[in-house]
Amino acid sequence: MSERYDIAIIGTGPAGLEAAINAKIRNKNIVIFGNKDLSPKLTKAAKVNNYLGLYNLTGTELKNKFADHIKDMGVKIVNEKINNVYAMGDYFALMVNEKVYEAKAIILATGIEYTKPLIGEEEFLGKGVGYCATCDAPLYKGKTVVIVGYNKESVEEANYVSELSGKTYYIPMYKGEYNLNENVEIINNKPLKIVGDDVVTKMILDQGEIATDGIFMLRDSVSPSQLVPGIEIENGHIKVDRDMKTSIDGCYAAGDCTGTPYQYMKSAGEGLVAALSAVSYVDKLHVNK
Amino acid sequence: MSERYDIAIIGTGPAGLEAAINAKIRNKNIVIFGNKDLSPKLTKAAKVNNYLGLYNLTGTELKNKFADHIKDMGVKIVNEKINNVYAMGDYFALMVNEKVYEAKAIILATGIEYTKPLIGEEEFLGKGVGYCATCDAPLYKGKTVVIVGYNKESVEEANYVSELSGKTYYIPMYKGEYNLNENVEIINNKPLKIVGDDVVTKMILDQGEIATDGIFMLRDSVSPSQLVPGIEIENGHIKVDRDMKTSIDGCYAAGDCTGTPYQYMKSAGEGLVAALSAVSYVDKLHVNK
Repeated sequence: MSERYDIAIIGTGPAGLEAAINAKIRNKNIVIFGNKDLSPKLTKAAKVNNYLGLYNLTGTELKNKFADHIKDMGVKIVNEKINNVYAMGDYFALMVNEKVYEAKAIILATGIEYTKPLIGEEEFLGKGVGYCATCDAPLYKGKTVVIVGYNKESVEEANYVSELSGKTYYIPMYKGEYNLNENVEIINNKPLKIVGDDVVTKMILDQGEIATDGIFMLRDSVSPSQLVPGIEIENGHIKVDRDMKTSIDGCYAAGDCTGTPYQYMKSAGEGLVAALSAVSYVDKLHVNK
Repeated sequence: MSERYDIAIIGTGPAGLEAAINAKIRNKNIVIFGNKDLSPKLTKAAKVNNYLGLYNLTGTELKNKFADHIKDMGVKIVNEKINNVYAMGDYFALMVNEKVYEAKAIILATGIEYTKPLIGEEEFLGKGVGYCATCDAPLYKGKTVVIVGYNKESVEEANYVSELSGKTYYIPMYKGEYNLNENVEIINNKPLKIVGDDVVTKMILDQGEIATDGIFMLRDSVSPSQLVPGIEIENGHIKVDRDMKTSIDGCYAAGDCTGTPYQYMKSAGEGLVAALSAVSYVDKLHVNK
């Protein structure tokens, strides 16, 4: 059985980091998933002047302050992408490519950099549409698979799939070199729609279509409703109350994913609140047992 | 006519300061009322480790970082105590001892260091009970006045009142030297209750009582419901939504006064949100005119 953490935090922007240090100070056993570069968006900021106490810093300088702080507190980032989170009653199962993490409470601090799902994508999720090629590749032995890759890392997954599948198509959604196996066919055409009956049958492109058995959408991040099935969304953001509780018991959210303004200080403040709410939830779980 | 500010901020803890820098960045004409020492509570903190980006600092060191930041941004604190705020429709009137400030929107960042009102205090507010001795002293010419002083500054007000009133009692709620005029009588006894008919008639102490015409309660801060008549309170805190809007149009709140957790980062995050909400409110006022 995998170790069960007290709190799992998804995201390493200001919301996730502030949540991590607060949960840690409260002696919780935490795991935080994200990027060792913390937040690509943060790095891009030219100058930040509205983060009280730290001013006239570039985004990168501010990021380095955050990195120093979490390092000093012993917070280590796990560089893995969570594909799905399932509420299991008194704990959550967090699905990574080949692993499952368990946590009593979770904090979603995923930001807002997710793209809109394709038409048909949500309808056929689990019926031919997936977000983790490595996980589900064995289902497509000898069959046809379309991989829509939004980043360079998608190439690895495409190559892995091509070793098992009958035919692999790769649709790159970014510019660059594609270091693909010879048997992967590149399609330079925009995906528009996923269609099928009970299961996926084809992908419609702006020019033409591809008959296929499976489609993998490999984005930098998945939308909250795809990440945590059943979570309540309001105006495109995760619905939270003033304690940063979502519609699911034990699941909290903080930062840009909960709504505007998209600002570091707002995110960090919510991260703190989400962490203390999660700590209190975990403490109560123990009492009830 | 007094100058009308875009946004008036009451309080100089992390919530008020973060609100100030954000409103300033958005080119609003602001005024911020508080203490040049920013937040006495902040200064008392031994070590703060959960303010992302700044760690291992004492409260005083963190306070100094805040002070440097607002100084760099040209935010100047007005060291005056607001006694009352009245919603006048499209603006607010902020009552200081001898002055009135006007603002299109206000942000309450008053913290939570207010003490519980005495029994009868709210009932007789404006009917013999007041919070500003200097303002209302002329009402008590030749009459009896009780002053309950929670801080050293109360002494000045008591001395001023004693020049007009027939009899002045001073009940100090703190230890120290009381540099009072000779005709002020000190009562070392705990006030319990204010009683009267239509207006105040006496103050009940833990030992004995004083027949009086007027009572001034001079605290460091007044409770939100006394500061802004009619504001909605929930569980002892100012009720706000996720945009930090209170029950009064144009009135926002942030920090400890809106609820737990009482933490700097939570306060600062809310200060940011309150500021941007107030900015948006002020911008809309202009459009509608």
